[in-house]
Amino acid sequence: MQPFNEMLRLRIRERNSLVCVGLDVDPGRIPASLKNDTDPVFVFNREIIRATRDLVLAYKPNLAFYESLGTEGWDILRRTLSVIPDDVIKIGDAKRGDIGNTADRYARALFSLGFDAVTVNPYMGFDSMEPFIRDSSKGIFILCLTSNPGSKDFQYLLSDSRPLYLHVAEKARTWNKNGNCGLVTGATHPDELQAIRETAGELPFLIPGIGAQGGDLGASVLAGTDQQGSMAVINSSRGILYASSGPDFAVAAAGETRALRDSINSIRRAKKPGVP
Amino acid sequence: MQPFNEMLRLRIRERNSLVCVGLDVDPGRIPASLKNDTDPVFVFNREIIRATRDLVLAYKPNLAFYESLGTEGWDILRRTLSVIPDDVIKIGDAKRGDIGNTADRYARALFSLGFDAVTVNPYMGFDSMEPFIRDSSKGIFILCLTSNPGSKDFQYLLSDSRPLYLHVAEKARTWNKNGNCGLVTGATHPDELQAIRETAGELPFLIPGIGAQGGDLGASVLAGTDQQGSMAVINSSRGILYASSGPDFAVAAAGETRALRDSINSIRRAKKPGVP
Repeated sequence: MQPFNEMLRLRIRERNSLVCVGLDVDPGRIPASLKNDTDPVFVFNREIIRATRDLVLAYKPNLAFYESLGTEGWDILRRTLSVIPDDVIKIGDAKRGDIGNTADRYARALFSLGFDAVTVNPYMGFDSMEPFIRDSSKGIFILCLTSNPGSKDFQYLLSDSRPLYLHVAEKARTWNKNGNCGLVTGATHPDELQAIRETAGELPFLIPGIGAQGGDLGASVLAGTDQQGSMAVINSSRGILYASSGPDFAVAAAGETRALRDSINSIRRAKKPGVP
Repeated sequence: MQPFNEMLRLRIRERNSLVCVGLDVDPGRIPASLKNDTDPVFVFNREIIRATRDLVLAYKPNLAFYESLGTEGWDILRRTLSVIPDDVIKIGDAKRGDIGNTADRYARALFSLGFDAVTVNPYMGFDSMEPFIRDSSKGIFILCLTSNPGSKDFQYLLSDSRPLYLHVAEKARTWNKNGNCGLVTGATHPDELQAIRETAGELPFLIPGIGAQGGDLGASVLAGTDQQGSMAVINSSRGILYASSGPDFAVAAAGETRALRDSINSIRRAKKPGVP
């Protein structure tokens, strides 16, 4: 089977989109029109997916939102993944990291749910990543420079004149023997993205933090994509899911997704003429 | 309500034990005598708990083992927690870490299951910890120096002449305003434990890595406890759960737990005469 990163490059070309919709559904923000449904979270996800599936590269449910729904959460997640078309990438935002024999359990749990790729936390080092890396057809996005304020606490610590996040980027490149490693790099740090891209070569970047978190879209696309204007996955969650709180939520979500895709593609074309 | 760390100190005194049993059940290693049970993982946990509950300070299920059981896993975990006595501490080994609004979901999911404390990953910094710290009655053990081989990849990077794990220990001490922060410090690094204890003051240490991972029990207890020979939680998982693969597994687990408790207490007495 094709390594994940090659598959990602192909899908970016075929779908002509870098947009990832974060399926982080807050039951408290589901439109009133769905509130009386017996299965509101799943129905909300399904309607968002139906309305946006031709516009996106990927969907990314964050596991926390499903775990907080209790026992039922895993079932809602499984059913949500089952309505995503096969040629759309499914990223499990789990940020897991544990010792080898335990990481192996997490990898099996997440990949057996149907994810194509997952996010992982690098703090515990290689053996905590290895069970996720083993299957070259599955992608692994390693936290590098995250989009939140707390990214300043440890990620910028300098060691050998280089911040911790660049050490992570360097290691990720050496761990990429199976062609399936990538990095999570927040859009809230556009100035740092350039240095990470130089260190990481062609590794794919998963870029959260535009929209509610205030990241800079233009700078992130310019600095975060590779020289072909590819290999970046730009996530938006709240800006798309809650584009409208009315019964037109899915139509509004599609409008936001299309606008984001087109904005990104015009920035890509400015960087690399020839991007469609 | 009493802050978690005070409560922990009290429980260590009352129960006269530092032992934590890691409830990391591998369905493939459940004794043959339970294999035909309709609910083997829960029954195994229940029997281990019944046999060891008077000998331990805490139980620590690792979430990965339950997530890998699918939808049913959360229910088995919930029922397992319900058979642990109220005065025994329940630690959710989840190693979570995510941006603020998402970390809040994880905190609610874990604490509503019934955990008294959780493990978290510091890579994303303060706002990823804060939702767990907010309730002073709940404990938070922050990964500092982990027991696995990959701990060497980033945790030892020197910044300002101090390794990353000591930066984490320093930050944890400043984050301990509610009296509920602790550290995860592996028994496989006994020489480093002393420096972490000096940096961290009286913060509790959760110490995995004895037994299957080969950590040094004596050095870990001496260096990992505070000046009173307290404030350490020493975890053993596989060495206790699989002490026997026969129908006597629970009796054998109790024997291993008692031996471990007594070994630890004799080392504590050597450090601080007066420990019972």
